[in-house]
Amino acid sequence: MRIPNHIGLIPDGNRRWAVSKGYSKEKGYQYGLMPGLIMFKLCEKEGVKELTYYGFTTDNTKRPAFQRKSFTEACVKAVEMLSKENASLLVVGNTKSPMFPKSLLPYTKTRTDFGKGGIKVNFLVNYGWEWDLGNLSENSSTNRKTITSFLKSSDISRVDLIIRWGGRRRLSGFLPVQSIYSDFYVIDRYWPDFKPEDFYNALQWYDTQDITLGG
Amino acid sequence: MRIPNHIGLIPDGNRRWAVSKGYSKEKGYQYGLMPGLIMFKLCEKEGVKELTYYGFTTDNTKRPAFQRKSFTEACVKAVEMLSKENASLLVVGNTKSPMFPKSLLPYTKTRTDFGKGGIKVNFLVNYGWEWDLGNLSENSSTNRKTITSFLKSSDISRVDLIIRWGGRRRLSGFLPVQSIYSDFYVIDRYWPDFKPEDFYNALQWYDTQDITLGG
Repeated sequence: MRIPNHIGLIPDGNRRWAVSKGYSKEKGYQYGLMPGLIMFKLCEKEGVKELTYYGFTTDNTKRPAFQRKSFTEACVKAVEMLSKENASLLVVGNTKSPMFPKSLLPYTKTRTDFGKGGIKVNFLVNYGWEWDLGNLSENSSTNRKTITSFLKSSDISRVDLIIRWGGRRRLSGFLPVQSIYSDFYVIDRYWPDFKPEDFYNALQWYDTQDITLGG
Repeated sequence: MRIPNHIGLIPDGNRRWAVSKGYSKEKGYQYGLMPGLIMFKLCEKEGVKELTYYGFTTDNTKRPAFQRKSFTEACVKAVEMLSKENASLLVVGNTKSPMFPKSLLPYTKTRTDFGKGGIKVNFLVNYGWEWDLGNLSENSSTNRKTITSFLKSSDISRVDLIIRWGGRRRLSGFLPVQSIYSDFYVIDRYWPDFKPEDFYNALQWYDTQDITLGG
């Protein structure tokens, strides 16, 4: 099977999952932690080279404060959890805003190897597409490699496969430049209900896609 | 029914359709002309305000010359056909390259009303995402309205619904910034086999989507 080098994860549906269980919306996020760890281990097992988690966005921070607190805490815990694995970890997002959790600042400077190193793991925290594109002012080229190098997310490579849980068929601001040629697989299940078969179904589907990069 | 203001069309599968009929690949494009016109009329009827056709890209021009000739001719004919409708027409793409068909230059300067005017119709011709982002060098803001205004495609508004024929679930470079929040509907049928039900199925699906713009 042809394994994608780089998988992007959009772990959506935490709030809808919580409501479906009779919990209040903000309770959903903590149930997304274990799926995130299982996904990491599955990617490790199958030889994926790079994995990007869509943590939270600058758009998301406009939600009610108790929801914001809850998804921020879940992201902090997720990054701490991943730092106990064999991973080369980088947190990417707007650190200059008060919405950025200070405890994650040490992960933003440079990619850090934990354990034996291993898969590149990018975790988007307080990420915004307009923030990401904001540095292009210093670029004066239409060469794609040069453009890419001026992204604030320039340490994140082109995404081969995006998997989104929760049924919505949209990118919602996820890495617009790295996603230009990505194959996009949507799973109706909410993220906290993640099953390993979601990952394997996505891989099997990806294996049947031709890769043309727009050509 | 909630009708999207702006629909983006990715009319893919012309070559695969031709091969499936026993024709050579480049014969497929001409069979995409009539579907394009029918789509225009359906959008007009249902009150869509803006429609963007993905004509051809700078990536596509790397294909064999006889294919390039064929899809370029089809795009020229499509624009001429649309100029006989009530449409406010704009062709968007890199006009400075020899790949841009000279006969379409008059449509690129400013949006031109044909007939009684009407739906805004954008036709992407020799479009490249890196070309589109290339002007961001003159922008020094992370404000999304300002960023958008510096796109080369700044006359094209945010896309609400993208419909892609030919089964592939990817954007292939289609307006990366305007597509950030777009709902994405994929139809397995090849574009020359377009049926009006494709459009109505997409509209019905779109009607069930919540619009959050990332919030």
